[in-house]
Amino acid sequence: MYINENFIKLPQSYLFSKVAAKLREYKEAHPDADLIRMDIGDVTLPIAPCVIDAMHKAVDDMASPSTFHGYGPEQGYPFLRDAIAKHDYQDRGIDIHAEDIFISDGAKSDLGNLGDIYSQKSIIAVADPGYPVYVDASVIDGRGGELLPDGRWSRIMYLECNPDNGFKPNVPQKAVDVVFLCSPCNPTGTVFTRDELKEWVEYARKNRTLIIFDSAYEAFVQDKDIPKSIYEIEGAKEVAIEIRSFSKTAGFTGLRCGYTVVPSELVGYDREGNSYPLRQLWNRRQCTKFNGASYVIQRGAEALYTPEGREAVKKNIDVYLSNARYIKDQLEKAGFEVYGGENSPYVWARLRGENDSWALFQKLLDEAQLSSTPGIGFGECGAGYIRLTGFNSPENTRKAMERLGKVNLNTSVAGEEGSGSMNDLKAIKALDDLQVLDDITKAMEI
Amino acid sequence: MYINENFIKLPQSYLFSKVAAKLREYKEAHPDADLIRMDIGDVTLPIAPCVIDAMHKAVDDMASPSTFHGYGPEQGYPFLRDAIAKHDYQDRGIDIHAEDIFISDGAKSDLGNLGDIYSQKSIIAVADPGYPVYVDASVIDGRGGELLPDGRWSRIMYLECNPDNGFKPNVPQKAVDVVFLCSPCNPTGTVFTRDELKEWVEYARKNRTLIIFDSAYEAFVQDKDIPKSIYEIEGAKEVAIEIRSFSKTAGFTGLRCGYTVVPSELVGYDREGNSYPLRQLWNRRQCTKFNGASYVIQRGAEALYTPEGREAVKKNIDVYLSNARYIKDQLEKAGFEVYGGENSPYVWARLRGENDSWALFQKLLDEAQLSSTPGIGFGECGAGYIRLTGFNSPENTRKAMERLGKVNLNTSVAGEEGSGSMNDLKAIKALDDLQVLDDITKAMEI
Repeated sequence: MYINENFIKLPQSYLFSKVAAKLREYKEAHPDADLIRMDIGDVTLPIAPCVIDAMHKAVDDMASPSTFHGYGPEQGYPFLRDAIAKHDYQDRGIDIHAEDIFISDGAKSDLGNLGDIYSQKSIIAVADPGYPVYVDASVIDGRGGELLPDGRWSRIMYLECNPDNGFKPNVPQKAVDVVFLCSPCNPTGTVFTRDELKEWVEYARKNRTLIIFDSAYEAFVQDKDIPKSIYEIEGAKEVAIEIRSFSKTAGFTGLRCGYTVVPSELVGYDREGNSYPLRQLWNRRQCTKFNGASYVIQRGAEALYTPEGREAVKKNIDVYLSNARYIKDQLEKAGFEVYGGENSPYVWARLRGENDSWALFQKLLDEAQLSSTPGIGFGECGAGYIRLTGFNSPENTRKAMERLGKVNLNTSVAGEEGSGSMNDLKAIKALDDLQVLDDITKAMEI
Repeated sequence: MYINENFIKLPQSYLFSKVAAKLREYKEAHPDADLIRMDIGDVTLPIAPCVIDAMHKAVDDMASPSTFHGYGPEQGYPFLRDAIAKHDYQDRGIDIHAEDIFISDGAKSDLGNLGDIYSQKSIIAVADPGYPVYVDASVIDGRGGELLPDGRWSRIMYLECNPDNGFKPNVPQKAVDVVFLCSPCNPTGTVFTRDELKEWVEYARKNRTLIIFDSAYEAFVQDKDIPKSIYEIEGAKEVAIEIRSFSKTAGFTGLRCGYTVVPSELVGYDREGNSYPLRQLWNRRQCTKFNGASYVIQRGAEALYTPEGREAVKKNIDVYLSNARYIKDQLEKAGFEVYGGENSPYVWARLRGENDSWALFQKLLDEAQLSSTPGIGFGECGAGYIRLTGFNSPENTRKAMERLGKVNLNTSVAGEEGSGSMNDLKAIKALDDLQVLDDITKAMEI
């Protein structure tokens, strides 16, 4: 039996192992250090009481023959699809219907599994820096081509983000088949304005490009002028799939529930130019390889759309946002160049002029007992930057920033990075240990 | 953007729509008829009290910051992997470890997603009749070739099952890359003996074939001589992946939890003959495209391994088995040729010499108000047969069999079937309605 050889090409997440190794090393050398994790991508606030109540009730439903729920619809229960269509779309003036909405066990599954419905030969575009899953899933599916010496893939188009474009990917000159866009963006915390998103929709319509719009962080958008959904842009329903999650909104990272919107207007093409509704393809994919999300969890998600649920989500988001804003302000005061931290839980920063994110990571670890995520882990364009998150407690966030204020940032941090991620790849090859990898992928891939 | 054109080739489940259409038609003509569903593949008994308690406790864990669980391991929590390794394997003398076990949201997801790790060019073998997902998922992944006039796929090898081999697939003469085996089998209810399974393991070792062993129904095996796990056969760990589910065992069809075993000894090959551990490939696949099963549901599954949980599972299984055995006995008394119904919830039957499963379906519907699943829906070799299940209540099962006893079975039921499933495919083309399809795929694909 022959394997899918794309797996051989795909390097392990060496950068992530390296973070874990460095944190472990530091803890061993300083067993009493009060390390503050500012790198966490996971939520920390508990689930809202009304969701807890709804899940208890759903669990009880399962205990009695008359209320027992067996197999549910692969697309999700109507009670949840209806609530999403109404509250997340129609009440905001967006014409999306329950039939366009597919409930799943989370955004990561959908991001990966959507690769089943478009051609294996598709040319993919991703932002650099970006969420690593876009690239890794594409490589597994045979859309990577070859791994180049600089750590990029020959068949993938990288949309370079940097201070010139405010870390927001520009519309490319060439046509691509599929582009992954993320707003609010992980890792940079940047958000697309309405005009920027309009440009993308125009590009997609002109080039028959499919936009996979990852809006897992939409609940963090507070600014009324910033779109929460790509469908706020006219014509987007004909070119875009939108992926959302209850993970960051409502703390469902351990419960597992998200949804994907595939509007009826959205079509793809065969080589002869005939068009096919993608909704039917995705429906068929899900009916064949998925059996629906858990009833108990879907009942929990439904409760998020009650007045109590919406209030609870708002309260959580406010805590994380206020952390992020505080981090942003403190970093700016300390002289960092900063992106994100508004309408987003993520803050993206570097010391002006420096280009070694590992050195900055190490400096903050050594001198402030604060862990961050080296930006280079998200792509070549992340060199020099670190990602901090608003997901720790307000107390820890404050403490971490106070420590940061005392660090002498006037000495250069330039060091080992230089030629990019492949250096780390070589350096860390010995660390090829499944369990170590498991531990950290979590902390960083999310 | 170009679509995956394999979706165009894949016909909708017309046979399944036809069942739904016929049931609807019957109900409209006989609104007061007391139709008994003997076609259901879903469980009906509620979840055991100890599982309910464990889920309530897990829901409460999510309500407090100190016990909150965010992202869990993609592979599943150690508490569940350990329990499975101990109770389902080590206590039965099988050397499988927690690291070999990957928890998921269900067997159907794993069956579909496993296609990511082996070569797209793999030649697949499936039993006919068989669970339709094996074929449909393979076609989506590009392993079907072309759809032939008889409804089969040009690149798939069909292992024909019939009275001659007791509806158990024989080892083929030619080598294949991947074979799906199911025991206890859906739809035929047959089980492999130790010797038969040995033959398959020998074949796989000789030909470097990967066996995907679907043992979703293993809990129904009562006979001590019948293997519950393929790993009871020596050498199987080097050639087989085993997929299991809590759905039929413990009624988790609506909760969603299953697991897949990929032993460390199992390898696949690249075109140059180098070997790679499949466990690492599957781990990478799951870490990239999946974010773990729900914490609440995994806690529920863990409770199945307590003494109370195991007793509850046994009680449920006994009810379904006793239904199935009763169906088998009554059908045999009525002169049917019968398979399954022992060590399995499924009964597979026909009237001797007849070869039209639609006519039999219709006869039982008209004369006994009893719905069954026409065997032709599971493949060409199902012609003439129907599938009945033990999943209804004991009362309904008894009532249905009493009615069946009064049907005059001496008149021929031969009719429209003849040239196989493509006839139905044409006849029902008008029924191409997403919602109708959704409704019934459930009832039959499981």
